Amino acid sequence: MNITVNPTRDNWANLTTRPAKEAANLSKTISDVFDEVQVHGDKALLLYTKKFDKVALKNLKVSEVEIGQARSLLSQDLKDAIALAKKNIEIFHSSQLIEKQVVETTNGVECWQEMRPIEKVGLYIPGGTAPLFSTILMLGIPAKLAGCKEIILCTPPDVFGNINPAILYAAELVGVTTIFKLGGVQAIAALTFGTESVPNVYKIFGPGNQFVTGAKQYALTKSVAIDMPAGPSELMVVTDQKANATFVASDLLSQAEHGHDSQVICVSDSLEKLKEIEAAVEKQLAVLPRRDMATSAIENSQLILIEDVSTQIDFINEYAPEHLILNVENEDAYLDNIINSGSVFIGAYTPESAGDYASGTNHTLPTNSYARMYSGVNMDSFTKKITFQKITKQGIKNIGPAIELMAEAEGLEAHKNAVTLRLESLK
Amino acid sequence: MNITVNPTRDNWANLTTRPAKEAANLSKTISDVFDEVQVHGDKALLLYTKKFDKVALKNLKVSEVEIGQARSLLSQDLKDAIALAKKNIEIFHSSQLIEKQVVETTNGVECWQEMRPIEKVGLYIPGGTAPLFSTILMLGIPAKLAGCKEIILCTPPDVFGNINPAILYAAELVGVTTIFKLGGVQAIAALTFGTESVPNVYKIFGPGNQFVTGAKQYALTKSVAIDMPAGPSELMVVTDQKANATFVASDLLSQAEHGHDSQVICVSDSLEKLKEIEAAVEKQLAVLPRRDMATSAIENSQLILIEDVSTQIDFINEYAPEHLILNVENEDAYLDNIINSGSVFIGAYTPESAGDYASGTNHTLPTNSYARMYSGVNMDSFTKKITFQKITKQGIKNIGPAIELMAEAEGLEAHKNAVTLRLESLK
Repeated sequence: MNITVNPTRDNWANLTTRPAKEAANLSKTISDVFDEVQVHGDKALLLYTKKFDKVALKNLKVSEVEIGQARSLLSQDLKDAIALAKKNIEIFHSSQLIEKQVVETTNGVECWQEMRPIEKVGLYIPGGTAPLFSTILMLGIPAKLAGCKEIILCTPPDVFGNINPAILYAAELVGVTTIFKLGGVQAIAALTFGTESVPNVYKIFGPGNQFVTGAKQYALTKSVAIDMPAGPSELMVVTDQKANATFVASDLLSQAEHGHDSQVICVSDSLEKLKEIEAAVEKQLAVLPRRDMATSAIENSQLILIEDVSTQIDFINEYAPEHLILNVENEDAYLDNIINSGSVFIGAYTPESAGDYASGTNHTLPTNSYARMYSGVNMDSFTKKITFQKITKQGIKNIGPAIELMAEAEGLEAHKNAVTLRLESLK
Repeated sequence: MNITVNPTRDNWANLTTRPAKEAANLSKTISDVFDEVQVHGDKALLLYTKKFDKVALKNLKVSEVEIGQARSLLSQDLKDAIALAKKNIEIFHSSQLIEKQVVETTNGVECWQEMRPIEKVGLYIPGGTAPLFSTILMLGIPAKLAGCKEIILCTPPDVFGNINPAILYAAELVGVTTIFKLGGVQAIAALTFGTESVPNVYKIFGPGNQFVTGAKQYALTKSVAIDMPAGPSELMVVTDQKANATFVASDLLSQAEHGHDSQVICVSDSLEKLKEIEAAVEKQLAVLPRRDMATSAIENSQLILIEDVSTQIDFINEYAPEHLILNVENEDAYLDNIINSGSVFIGAYTPESAGDYASGTNHTLPTNSYARMYSGVNMDSFTKKITFQKITKQGIKNIGPAIELMAEAEGLEAHKNAVTLRLESLK
């Protein structure tokens, strides 16, 4: 790992450059698949599944029988672990529901907000070696709490046409309405337009490779909303001299194993500690099953000495890390000053893994410096806030003349007239 | 106006088709302007301003002197009206700030959310005949309450290089940091990339014509966020037999005067009332200054008889109106069932104009059926919610084994190891 000592501010951006995305132009491929799915529906979906997932399916929809089998394939221990995670995610996300709070802005003028579910949502879960059933908990639980009526899950089948049982189990547990064996761009296109089998949805959530990410961006131009723009996962750890180097190394590696393009950055006020962490990373890396992936991510990563807390905070906010671990004793010097981050993990016993699975917070978070302007997935993601207002006769008398003046100044006479007629009727 | 009696459900979509957008392909124009601004900065901005706004500026930035002059040009009455609107908007938007609420999801595991401002935001206000200073209140006030550090306003100059004084006054009043005489695609490009004069921002807000709207969509692909996709404004009014037809007509016209492509829809359980409203619209329309615009919008619009409340509610939710006026006596039969709408106006004395200017709610709302999945602008729009978690030794003992099992099942050994090392240290 590269150790940098007290970098100057004009060097920060270089040090923290995110791994470059592949520059391949995917837009033609993506728009072609969307066009085909829009015109040919299920037929196109089955063809693409045969082409990309190497399996000829008869039905895209997962059957009750398959879900029942999945239930019997999981160990009770894993089911109990999932139940614990589910409970914590439910408790934390429930706390984000807002109560209706009526505000009287002027005598006779009442305003309030109410949360309403997005009625139809689509969740995408990638296939591949790691079955990301935890992401189903992170998306399906808040969708259900929000009251979304249709929760559609798409995930690609393996070459035998099967879905990992942990994915099916988690989907059923959280209340997914329908599960489809469908991946890639064609899944996003199906959720956008709807086909004979797959219902269209209003908003699409979930991770994916660059094709899926590009397809979600493309869906935005087809009147569908998405959770957030996606990029490779990343972690910043801030440590002091007392931090346990073994713990810090394990956190860095838990991020690094996500993929070749993951990025981990460790900031400390102690050069000795950074060297100790470097050694611990080497040691732990040697025995990791995913060490190939982790090794290249670690090569992209940085150990950085920054001595004073206030400069560290500026550095954090400039980087805007998806995950931030504060493994420091004086956490209070940091907390109120963290402006740009997705999720913050405080203290020696709060690894990122906790938030990835079971603390209760959401693990779908803004990467690639998007923490500057996006929140992670939360209850807002599955709801809209509608404003309501109710004005009495006295209320319109109180604010009507101001509305008339402002509408007139904007040259909008009919806006003014809607108030004038009411005020005249009250004379 | 067209009156439709008890339309069948399969005819609803036809009846409520939004006015077609121009199909002109703007993307080449937009990407060219972005490229020029990225490369040539201020020089490109000045050239485009000369080309499109017909004025050769020396400075893009509005001076203190100009702002001072604007202050002296506005009547005290209008200033008082703006002050009243500002107070109401502040009261309502302040009520949307969330308090930190720590939740213990499991013994020893604390999670919470905190709101943080988006540090740099850009507001766009169109030029043209109507100076939309009210939109500055609607965007600038929540930005300031949120704590945004830089609030940049771009608005096109007239041919003399001036900005309407009401716009300058409102911008200074709400705390806009810097105002630029800059409109169109070039303004959005400047806010996206930054130039010598104009700072780049993280999120861009505000209305505009199809070029500005297209430019905001394009900015999304350049790592900037936007408030929401935009479309022509629209209103649905639901009335019963007791509604005052004159009031309803004035509400329909206040929407219709926005533009040729505005849409107004009136639903009632009484055919007589619809005919009475039609007559009142004709009468009021004849004397409106913007009757040309309002006339073509009224031609696109619909009066629809739907007799039972539950069908009316389904119709509302299918249309997902930006503005919904419930001018009915039995409002309670509707309120809890409204799922898709931007803002709801309840009762005879709550015209849409009230929310456009001064009730306290925001007038930047989702159009074109986007109320299905987007909220109007509110405090969430100018903030992010960061999640925090803090776990004690006992806490990690309680949830650690579940994390280990789940990480293992997902094949993420390093995620597991970050917990295992901590649990072992506590044995």
